[in-house]
Amino acid sequence: MNTKTITVAQYGIGPIGAEITRLLLTKSWVKLVAAVDIDPDKIGKDVGEVIGLGREVGVKVTGELGVKADVICHSTGSRLRDVAGQLKALLERGSHVVSTCEELSFPLDQKIREDLQQVARAAQVTLLGTGVNPGFVMDKLPLTITSVCQEVKSVEIIRIQNASTRREPLQRKVGAGMTTAEFRAAVDSGKIKHMGLRESLMLVGHGLGVEFESISDEKIEPIVADREVTTKYLKVAKGQVAGVHQTIYGKGKINVSLELRMYVGAEAVAADRVIVKGVPDVTMEIKDGVHGDRATAAMVVNSIPRVMQARPGVLTMDDIPVSFR
Amino acid sequence: MNTKTITVAQYGIGPIGAEITRLLLTKSWVKLVAAVDIDPDKIGKDVGEVIGLGREVGVKVTGELGVKADVICHSTGSRLRDVAGQLKALLERGSHVVSTCEELSFPLDQKIREDLQQVARAAQVTLLGTGVNPGFVMDKLPLTITSVCQEVKSVEIIRIQNASTRREPLQRKVGAGMTTAEFRAAVDSGKIKHMGLRESLMLVGHGLGVEFESISDEKIEPIVADREVTTKYLKVAKGQVAGVHQTIYGKGKINVSLELRMYVGAEAVAADRVIVKGVPDVTMEIKDGVHGDRATAAMVVNSIPRVMQARPGVLTMDDIPVSFR
Repeated sequence: MNTKTITVAQYGIGPIGAEITRLLLTKSWVKLVAAVDIDPDKIGKDVGEVIGLGREVGVKVTGELGVKADVICHSTGSRLRDVAGQLKALLERGSHVVSTCEELSFPLDQKIREDLQQVARAAQVTLLGTGVNPGFVMDKLPLTITSVCQEVKSVEIIRIQNASTRREPLQRKVGAGMTTAEFRAAVDSGKIKHMGLRESLMLVGHGLGVEFESISDEKIEPIVADREVTTKYLKVAKGQVAGVHQTIYGKGKINVSLELRMYVGAEAVAADRVIVKGVPDVTMEIKDGVHGDRATAAMVVNSIPRVMQARPGVLTMDDIPVSFR
Repeated sequence: MNTKTITVAQYGIGPIGAEITRLLLTKSWVKLVAAVDIDPDKIGKDVGEVIGLGREVGVKVTGELGVKADVICHSTGSRLRDVAGQLKALLERGSHVVSTCEELSFPLDQKIREDLQQVARAAQVTLLGTGVNPGFVMDKLPLTITSVCQEVKSVEIIRIQNASTRREPLQRKVGAGMTTAEFRAAVDSGKIKHMGLRESLMLVGHGLGVEFESISDEKIEPIVADREVTTKYLKVAKGQVAGVHQTIYGKGKINVSLELRMYVGAEAVAADRVIVKGVPDVTMEIKDGVHGDRATAAMVVNSIPRVMQARPGVLTMDDIPVSFR
């Protein structure tokens, strides 16, 4: 695959957008042409400064997108209804859009999906939601592995991430250091939840061609520390919450289950695992698991050449091949 | 992905073609419309009988393809120059072709590739070479895994297959039971060689966007039994050959190495492994390895809906997404 220079705009310069921008700037086949954010503190500054690169790159952050780009990397929110307006406007400009919006990985809101579909097709451009999870380890990778099977009876997908090696906001987000009562209150108020697990389940089901007869509720439980755990940022006493255990499953002609455990002190057991029962059985493991922070930016940038070659419309990761580029 | 009924013809009813045909007949979205073979003993018989199904399926084996099919599954040979004429003729009929020809997985003969490219594009159809190896475990799967990486320094791909669980011809083909002298003579005469390892290397390099500065020779060495090994079909004494060890590597901006070990008595160590050094590192293992015989047919059949959606021309596995269907 030869890759010509692709003009790219970054839309949203939060922590993930900054990581994507840093990666874009390392790619010989990318020309960064714009960087957009709503933060008045960022607008007007060179994006190299904003993302902590220590050098100017010749692109100033603007509050609106002013130039045309082949592809826009979009990273402003997790919920489809919050970002649908942005996505429509970007597609209407005639750019492909690759977004980290978790709910876009498999849009469940049919009204929004249809709206985006029409806009993308009319403009002859592609819209893709991606990331490492959702977007790869719990959906695209398991789907890819099932391609060696003549029959599939069940797919069990397990991701155990050691939150100790992740940044502080993530350690807080999984509830590390809370009491179980605090944890349950945070779950009830929507503060503790990995976004995209249901989307991953539905993407796997769709890719395998199975309509689930029943889909479980998404269960979010605390993982309680059985010993004291100390990280760079916090300390968890024995009996306090170390992190989150989130599960969902679909039953049908093929049973699919997803289990995510994300907690501090998980170094000994961290892994990504896919267990396919079928003909043949396949048991795959990625030792220590794919580290989330770096991989999301990688998935976005590595998807860019593929989106350039894809058909127009709202696509999922099941519609495109991927690899490092 | 909804799959409408796809008409499929099987071209070549040897052991792999028979396995593909058996699988095609289990798929609700496939209508088998023809089965072709040159063997006079097979021609005129119902294909269900020929593949040992114990029932008629209403399709008689013919010596020539007489009907139009959306997709033709082609399985008649490993070498591109031997099958290029067949492939061209099938493409000219306006059918997509999915072939198990190992050298088609990444056509290295540019003259043949260009010929096929022109024919496929003129007829607006797709030609794909696939299988489990080449086609998946040592090329498509490693490429897919690298998509989580911001940087890739090297990719090490190791496949250790336990030949004890494979059919007799394969155990013979890896040299089990030979003396090392017999093995080396068989290598020299081209009788012992896993086809497609070089193609897998080149496919991985191409997918990663790296032009190798140097490519090693393909090394084929005996694996000598360190104990007596008995299989269903043969016995290997200590000191005799248990199987084959085949390696190739490319050096460049990214180093890629492929190592295939296929021998009897490998039950304790059988695995498929991909070790990516980069940002982040990724170490993947499929326990016991993907069993070859069933998986090749699976890859062919699971690729059919993807080829129907792909762009015309000569494609590789790096150009299409895959999953069980």
